Amino acid sequence: MAAQTFLTAKEADVLKKAPAVEGVLPAIHERWSARSFDGREVSAEVLEKVFEAARWAASSGNEQPWRFVVGLRGSETFRKLLESLGGFNREWAGRAAALILGTAATRFSRNGAENRFALYDLGAAAANLTLEAAALGLTTHQMGGFDQEAARKALGIPAEYALGAVIALGYRGEPAELGNESLIERETTPRTRKPLSEIVFGEWGEAAKL
Amino acid sequence: MAAQTFLTAKEADVLKKAPAVEGVLPAIHERWSARSFDGREVSAEVLEKVFEAARWAASSGNEQPWRFVVGLRGSETFRKLLESLGGFNREWAGRAAALILGTAATRFSRNGAENRFALYDLGAAAANLTLEAAALGLTTHQMGGFDQEAARKALGIPAEYALGAVIALGYRGEPAELGNESLIERETTPRTRKPLSEIVFGEWGEAAKL
Repeated sequence: MAAQTFLTAKEADVLKKAPAVEGVLPAIHERWSARSFDGREVSAEVLEKVFEAARWAASSGNEQPWRFVVGLRGSETFRKLLESLGGFNREWAGRAAALILGTAATRFSRNGAENRFALYDLGAAAANLTLEAAALGLTTHQMGGFDQEAARKALGIPAEYALGAVIALGYRGEPAELGNESLIERETTPRTRKPLSEIVFGEWGEAAKL
Repeated sequence: MAAQTFLTAKEADVLKKAPAVEGVLPAIHERWSARSFDGREVSAEVLEKVFEAARWAASSGNEQPWRFVVGLRGSETFRKLLESLGGFNREWAGRAAALILGTAATRFSRNGAENRFALYDLGAAAANLTLEAAALGLTTHQMGGFDQEAARKALGIPAEYALGAVIALGYRGEPAELGNESLIERETTPRTRKPLSEIVFGEWGEAAKL
C-alpha cells in the first residue's frame, strides 16, 4: 500500500466518488467523509449556506428538532468538542475549520409528547448540511465516536436533547499530511455500498421488482 | 381562504419553495412535502435513481442500516402500507405512485452491538431520496402518522429493525383535486422554518457568531 501514501487529494477524490449515475445529484455521489483538512478557515457566508440547507429539511410535524452547536477552530467550543472525540478521531479532526455537534429535542414543543423522529430528523438535516458542503467544495466527516456524556456536560446540553454526531467541516487537505499510514490508507480506499437488491425490497427480504 | 382553492400546482410551488439562497442546492429549497399527486406511475429508471441517492448516504461505521420496502400502486405492499396510515393521510396518499416504508437495523452487523445511529442514518438516506426525487421533478411526503405495529405485522418486518417513516412518492397533481378544503389550504400555505439564530448555537442557547 506504500504507493497509495502518495496519492494527492485530487487522485483520492477519483477513487472515493461514487460512480456517477445519470440524473443523480452530483453532490450525492461526490460527497464522502474525508479526514484530511488543509487547516483553512471557512467564511461566515459559507457556514450560513450549510446551515441554511439543514434548516429546510423535512421533519415530523415540522418540529425542526435540530439544534447545532458550532465550534470554530480556536474557540472554546471547538476545544471541548475535540476533547470529547475518541483518540482515533482526535488525531485528525483538530485541523477541521469547525466541529459541529448535532442535537435533537426529544419532545414535541406543541404538547410535550415524545418525538420518536427526533434523531431521524436530525439525521436528515445533517445530510442536507453535508450535501450542501460538498456542493460548496467543502468536506465533512460525521463521527459517532465521541464521549457523549463528556460533550453534554462540557457544553451544557439539557437532558431533553438527544445527541447526534460530531461533524468535522473544512476544506480538503492532502492525504499524505495525515501522517499516520492507516489513516492515509483509509483516505485512499474506494467507498463501498450494498447493492440496491439488498436494501430495496418489494416484500421483506426480497429485492423489489421496480 | 376560498380563493386559494383555485391555486394551480405551479402557483402553489411558488408559495412553497423556500427563498432561494445563492449557492444553496436548488433541490434543497425546492423540495416540499406535497399531498397532491396526479396518479401517474413512476418508471423503474426513476425509482432506481432515488434509491441510488439513498444508498450513498453516510452511516455510522458504514453500516448502511437502511432497508426500504416499496409498494407500487396496485400492489399488495402498497395496499398494506396505505391501510396502516392514519385516516388523514389515507385520504390523499392513495394517489401516490409508490408508498415506501423506511426501516433500519438497530444492531451493527459486525458485532451485534446496539447502533444508536440507526434512525439517524435512515433519516439521512431518506433525505437523500427526497432531494433526488425533487431534482427529478417528483414529490415526496414523509409520514410518521401510521400504525407501526400493523405495518410491521402486515409486512413481516423483524423486531430488530426500527421503523422510520412511510414515504409517498409520485408526480404532483393539482391542489384542487385534493377535494378536502383543509388539505387544499395546507397545500397552498407557505412553509415556515425557525431562523438560523434559533438552531445554530455557539454556546448552548446562544446564536452562533459565525
